[in-house]
Amino acid sequence: MIKMEVGLLKELLNVEDSLEIVVRFNDINTMGTVHFKEFLDYFEDGFVSFMNNIQDPLAVKNALKSGIVFPVKKLDIEYESSAEFGDHIIVKTRIKSIEDDSISFLHDIYRESDNVLLAKVVCVRLVMEVDSKKLVNVKQFFSEFV
Amino acid sequence: MIKMEVGLLKELLNVEDSLEIVVRFNDINTMGTVHFKEFLDYFEDGFVSFMNNIQDPLAVKNALKSGIVFPVKKLDIEYESSAEFGDHIIVKTRIKSIEDDSISFLHDIYRESDNVLLAKVVCVRLVMEVDSKKLVNVKQFFSEFV
Amino acid sequence: MIKMEVGLLKELLNVEDSLEIVVRFNDINTMGTVHFKEFLDYFEDGFVSFMNNIQDPLAVKNALKSGIVFPVKKLDIEYESSAEFGDHIIVKTRIKSIEDDSISFLHDIYRESDNVLLAKVVCVRLVMEVDSKKLVNVKQFFSEFV
Amino acid sequence: MIKMEVGLLKELLNVEDSLEIVVRFNDINTMGTVHFKEFLDYFEDGFVSFMNNIQDPLAVKNALKSGIVFPVKKLDIEYESSAEFGDHIIVKTRIKSIEDDSISFLHDIYRESDNVLLAKVVCVRLVMEVDSKKLVNVKQFFSEFV
Repeated sequence: MIKMEVGLLKELLNVEDSLEIVVRFNDINTMGTVHFKEFLDYFEDGFVSFMNNIQDPLAVKNALKSGIVFPVKKLDIEYESSAEFGDHIIVKTRIKSIEDDSISFLHDIYRESDNVLLAKVVCVRLVMEVDSKKLVNVKQFFSEFV
Repeated sequence: MIKMEVGLLKELLNVEDSLEIVVRFNDINTMGTVHFKEFLDYFEDGFVSFMNNIQDPLAVKNALKSGIVFPVKKLDIEYESSAEFGDHIIVKTRIKSIEDDSISFLHDIYRESDNVLLAKVVCVRLVMEVDSKKLVNVKQFFSEFV
Repeated sequence: MIKMEVGLLKELLNVEDSLEIVVRFNDINTMGTVHFKEFLDYFEDGFVSFMNNIQDPLAVKNALKSGIVFPVKKLDIEYESSAEFGDHIIVKTRIKSIEDDSISFLHDIYRESDNVLLAKVVCVRLVMEVDSKKLVNVKQFFSEFV
Repeated sequence: MIKMEVGLLKELLNVEDSLEIVVRFNDINTMGTVHFKEFLDYFEDGFVSFMNNIQDPLAVKNALKSGIVFPVKKLDIEYESSAEFGDHIIVKTRIKSIEDDSISFLHDIYRESDNVLLAKVVCVRLVMEVDSKKLVNVKQFFSEFV
């Protein structure tokens, strides 16, 4: 087991990233509300924003260039309310836990105008080398990443 | 609480629908494997196939025409393995439970060639009238649907 | 034939809207570049931005609420160069021509960092009432819209 | 200029591939009809089917594995009619012309039930090596491909 510096871990668990996204016309379905599939784009954007926030505005792009990706292992979504075309939504992202083999993110998605919760997401990700498809120790990755 | 006829409930819980889907070129991401978002299309297809299977080849289309939709309330996905462009995948769909206010589907998604499990999905759906946005009692809906 | 006020027509043809979009991780394909399908999201956003620009920040949303949509009739795209995850792209939108039955938009899509042209789009749209599916005279619509 | 064997060229121009696709629930937009973006999936499937048809059921997959892709250079689409969820549509694909630097495909997309034309597509593609991003002579590629 990799030991992560306690101070760093605490610091990471305290970061909350907030990202604003505008609902596209193309995101809405036959009911006139955001398709449940589109929320995966929204919190993926939230993940990228979080990662860039704790390091560098191009952190995820640079990781990809150096052959590192963050595949989704597990996904839990509770849909609480719906959004419409043109709505401004806020994705609030923080880390729930970091293990050796995975990292869990919490994404709470709100409508900005009235602060109504639209969806709660728990997304468990791995860290993987693209070429070898080998998994990377997550604690070690984050110790070096930030 | 609506009482569902025990025989009908048992019958529904015994149905397993199996649907084959071919992975599109457009479904794969920068890692050369199916994007995690595309699995939502796959099990949505599985849901439609299941519903048509227990009633009529146009059951879901007819429901939509009569103003009934089945929004997703909750989603749990475990990604076990990845698929590539051109792979034939099998979506096995069955009902996990039927409550008054929701119905839970299990979708197990396999690669056909080697029977490897790609993803396990629990998808909880509501039954809703499009125009009024009113929820429909799920047990009653299924008692009349089949 | 509806006669559009010459001053208004001239004014509309002079408007150029410029919208910045950041390429999502989910927008890139197996080659590591933006999938050709995603450009349809980009210039749809450009269209919405243009329409809101000439009237009100919620113009297209309000049109949809009042039952008016702008279906695409014809699409010509020339792909000139590719973009990557994280790139900032600029969609420049202007009207090419307004006829009684359709309106043609030009969308030039650039990468912001080096001003390289990524795609040139001509998109011909109709104006339609959602409920009746009846087409609306485009010149008349725009005379009242702005 | 590469000379293509006249017999082979004639043969290729005579091939018409026909592919059936069922419209997904997720393919329809707020108007209840197929979103204009989804047609790009449909004729991409038609392209793959055509290519596999003239060679081997895994032709495009094998091309990708050997590092060859077929990026879209130019796209002209005329939308003639709309389709709904559950409709069976037919994509008829043939080659319009083969040049040294590109190949043009015609995709006519019909609704199966009443044979109504939904869209006419001209899609110009290149042949490219993924790793080097170098373009390949198209006539030579097809002389060896079939």
